[in-house]
Amino acid sequence: MALTGDIVIGTERLSGRAASFKAVDPATGDTLEPAFAFAGEAEVERACELAAEAFDAYRDTAPESRAAFLEAIAEEILALGDALVERACAESGLPRARIEGERGRTVGQLRLFAAVVRAGHWLDLRVDTALPDRKPLARSDLRQRHIPLGPVAVFGASNFPLAFSVAGGDTASALAAGCPVVVKGHPAHPGTGEMVGEAVRAAVARCGLPAGTFTLLLGANETGAALVRDPRIKAAGFTGSRGGGLALAALAAARPEPIPVYAEMSSINPVYLMPGALAARADALGKAFVGSLTMGAGQFCTNPGLVLALAGPELDAFVASATAALADYAPAAMLTPGIHGAYEAGRKALEGNGRVRRVAEGKVGEGVNRGRGALFVTEAADFLADASLAHEVFGASSLVVRCRDADEMVAVTRRLEGQLTVTLHLEPSDAALARRLMPVLEAKSGRILANGWPTGVEVSHAMVHGGPFPATSDGRSTSVGSLAIRRFLRPVCYQDLPAELLPAVLRDDALPGLPHMLDGAAKLPG
Amino acid sequence: MALTGDIVIGTERLSGRAASFKAVDPATGDTLEPAFAFAGEAEVERACELAAEAFDAYRDTAPESRAAFLEAIAEEILALGDALVERACAESGLPRARIEGERGRTVGQLRLFAAVVRAGHWLDLRVDTALPDRKPLARSDLRQRHIPLGPVAVFGASNFPLAFSVAGGDTASALAAGCPVVVKGHPAHPGTGEMVGEAVRAAVARCGLPAGTFTLLLGANETGAALVRDPRIKAAGFTGSRGGGLALAALAAARPEPIPVYAEMSSINPVYLMPGALAARADALGKAFVGSLTMGAGQFCTNPGLVLALAGPELDAFVASATAALADYAPAAMLTPGIHGAYEAGRKALEGNGRVRRVAEGKVGEGVNRGRGALFVTEAADFLADASLAHEVFGASSLVVRCRDADEMVAVTRRLEGQLTVTLHLEPSDAALARRLMPVLEAKSGRILANGWPTGVEVSHAMVHGGPFPATSDGRSTSVGSLAIRRFLRPVCYQDLPAELLPAVLRDDALPGLPHMLDGAAKLPG
Repeated sequence: MALTGDIVIGTERLSGRAASFKAVDPATGDTLEPAFAFAGEAEVERACELAAEAFDAYRDTAPESRAAFLEAIAEEILALGDALVERACAESGLPRARIEGERGRTVGQLRLFAAVVRAGHWLDLRVDTALPDRKPLARSDLRQRHIPLGPVAVFGASNFPLAFSVAGGDTASALAAGCPVVVKGHPAHPGTGEMVGEAVRAAVARCGLPAGTFTLLLGANETGAALVRDPRIKAAGFTGSRGGGLALAALAAARPEPIPVYAEMSSINPVYLMPGALAARADALGKAFVGSLTMGAGQFCTNPGLVLALAGPELDAFVASATAALADYAPAAMLTPGIHGAYEAGRKALEGNGRVRRVAEGKVGEGVNRGRGALFVTEAADFLADASLAHEVFGASSLVVRCRDADEMVAVTRRLEGQLTVTLHLEPSDAALARRLMPVLEAKSGRILANGWPTGVEVSHAMVHGGPFPATSDGRSTSVGSLAIRRFLRPVCYQDLPAELLPAVLRDDALPGLPHMLDGAAKLPG
Repeated sequence: MALTGDIVIGTERLSGRAASFKAVDPATGDTLEPAFAFAGEAEVERACELAAEAFDAYRDTAPESRAAFLEAIAEEILALGDALVERACAESGLPRARIEGERGRTVGQLRLFAAVVRAGHWLDLRVDTALPDRKPLARSDLRQRHIPLGPVAVFGASNFPLAFSVAGGDTASALAAGCPVVVKGHPAHPGTGEMVGEAVRAAVARCGLPAGTFTLLLGANETGAALVRDPRIKAAGFTGSRGGGLALAALAAARPEPIPVYAEMSSINPVYLMPGALAARADALGKAFVGSLTMGAGQFCTNPGLVLALAGPELDAFVASATAALADYAPAAMLTPGIHGAYEAGRKALEGNGRVRRVAEGKVGEGVNRGRGALFVTEAADFLADASLAHEVFGASSLVVRCRDADEMVAVTRRLEGQLTVTLHLEPSDAALARRLMPVLEAKSGRILANGWPTGVEVSHAMVHGGPFPATSDGRSTSVGSLAIRRFLRPVCYQDLPAELLPAVLRDDALPGLPHMLDGAAKLPG
């Protein structure tokens, strides 16, 4: 397909808008054709109007139809073929294998949500049977289901142009819940966005759904603000910077009708190198750590930006191994000039901070937008004395915090902000210290992993990609995995409703075929 | 037990504080002994410190121990005997039968949550098995459970001195989730609060739990603000006015680490009298409506403050019937002089509003703090033209909105704010209009009931006492029923953790005895 740069809302195609921009290949600095139009307030208004009009018809789709729609999106994305991969590579600077893998993940999560919609647990059906003879008061027939919140605004992320973008996890889970979606695409990959947006629109048309079920817009910050302020939008999903997420949350809270914002914002993903693990394999840990640190030019939300360990020769060995490995790291281009600039500023701030020492560097990059890898070391007391050392530096930079003893390691942990992940490298001999840390780690993070690396997030049922503030704006949720659907739902109770007014899923004939709770007891179909 | 008016925090009893106040019997205006001390910032600080210290031990209690604790609270409340009933009647002006019923409900919901804790659905356990041979990447062993958020602040409501107060639904669901609770008791019933608080403390001691598991404080608005601002508090539950709820939500959002606030605030609970129902039983509906309107002096969150119907002789018959019934209503005392004053102000505002007509009044009250019942009528066009007509008047006042036709009824419905409940009175002949209304009603409310009255909220599994803003600050939740536990939980994922570090409920030996999801398939014990 040829990219147009047009704004498409419903069945209208708006060409030749004044404000327009072009994508940049971050690996070369070259400008990529065509020009893309920015949506203004009128387009936001129209997209939200169509989404609101589409809501009742879309949320009324039977589970099988909605699942088929999600699968159709997956098919349409695959049907874009290699052109999608090429454009995504060009716009992101990410290598082909990564983009192909990410496409697989994106398609996989759409299919996972299709299965989720069919299985029906998300409806959370509950029935309390009438007790007409109960004394002193009869009990009514009470039935509960979860319904979608309404149209959802999704803000695409820069760092996963497919999996966290136009048809990424937020969109898939909101559509699965029955919510129309208006995406504000990330300007770092407008062509990728247009292609995926067309794929979703093709699936909407193929499935006979209202055109307002899905709209993709590009725009400035004001466009995003108008979207979150629109009274027809009932929730927002966002992956990006802390500043951006907090701004959206503030806008949402200031609305006449506040709405939930699920912003995934900031995490330094502490990695604990326990004494037994360091003693057993400091060298291997150092190498593997650098592999995780530099993956995707360090541009993962789960990038290991902090390492905690007890000071000593084993930690020195780890640092030496990491130093050697990092010295071999030839940096890839970062996603955008802006992200590269922010990385360099963050790295320079650390280099200028008297409380830290730079112990290792990667190679100087060849070409533009290369973020040179960096490893810093500090003492726990210094880390505790300077809150700025706990701020995320988005890119291939990490900070090793040397703790004098276990008490200090626990004390540092208690002072950490909320995190997406924490990682423990440990041996059986480390169990006592690990057990001491566990309650603190649980209170601080959404995922705790052992003897692995935080980069790489499985899309499955048990995954949590979330965590206490500021990792996310709402630690009660996840943005990856099947539980993500719950963010866009709310419960409604139906009391003594005649069968013809009950939702189909709550009628006596439907309940045996769906998981539900009957007078407090769980019932499964079949 | 003799009331002391002391502040009790952990094992410390603080007597003789300067700032103190006494309760008032709203039925007589008499002051009731003793004087109660207000907690200041130091006491809030200390209570939160103890709650934070108690958190890990309390959340680690086995399900059976936590359930036994909830049951012990119920026993200790019942052991207070008639003294509790008498004090609650004196402080609230509510009749004995109501308070006895409310005690039964309070005890019942503690026992319901004990059963919920034992059944284990709230843990939402999920396991994705490791796939070491998967290509291109192996899958880790992933296990998920829900854990409690941390210490919770609960604000007691005035209108249910037992069921929505010190050991009411918010406290029961937070304790069930594993969260220590700091209650700010409502100053309308400090003696009732002290007695119930002592009962909870006795249960804490009996069950060998840390004293910081539960603290009751009384105080001014600043005390509540200090509580919500305290960094150790991780969520808040509130039932009360829209102003109060919004103030708490704003404080919570402005914290360095924002926290969820579950505020149940404002609802006028529209009642739809459908043409068929009006034709069949206008007279009976009028009588029953007044029964619901005046129950508990109109001081229910679910009080029917709005009636919608098509104009015509059947609606006139309903109004005539309601007028006659209301004329017989001899008002009971309202809960506090302040609530009575606000009711009178709201009623006077309606009487002075040229868009409405007062069509009925109750009897003049004998004694202080009596809110005279009132029924007003307006036209749909007037209702739409004056937003103030949709504001809650807390007490036995309601407004009938006459719609010219079904379109106008739908249009009014679309303009309503979020509600706790909506009620349909209907006959089979009304099905078409009801079906047209249903999607709008679902979008506007947490509970839809047919041919009943919204006052009276069952405490069960399928109940929703919640609804879109401003009925609550978070329409994704309920404050009544077993689903309320979910408000105080968040998911954590454990990846490849050695068995000795996994939470007990997620170990291989425990899973078969608990409901869980295994690779996406639901599994039930037994």
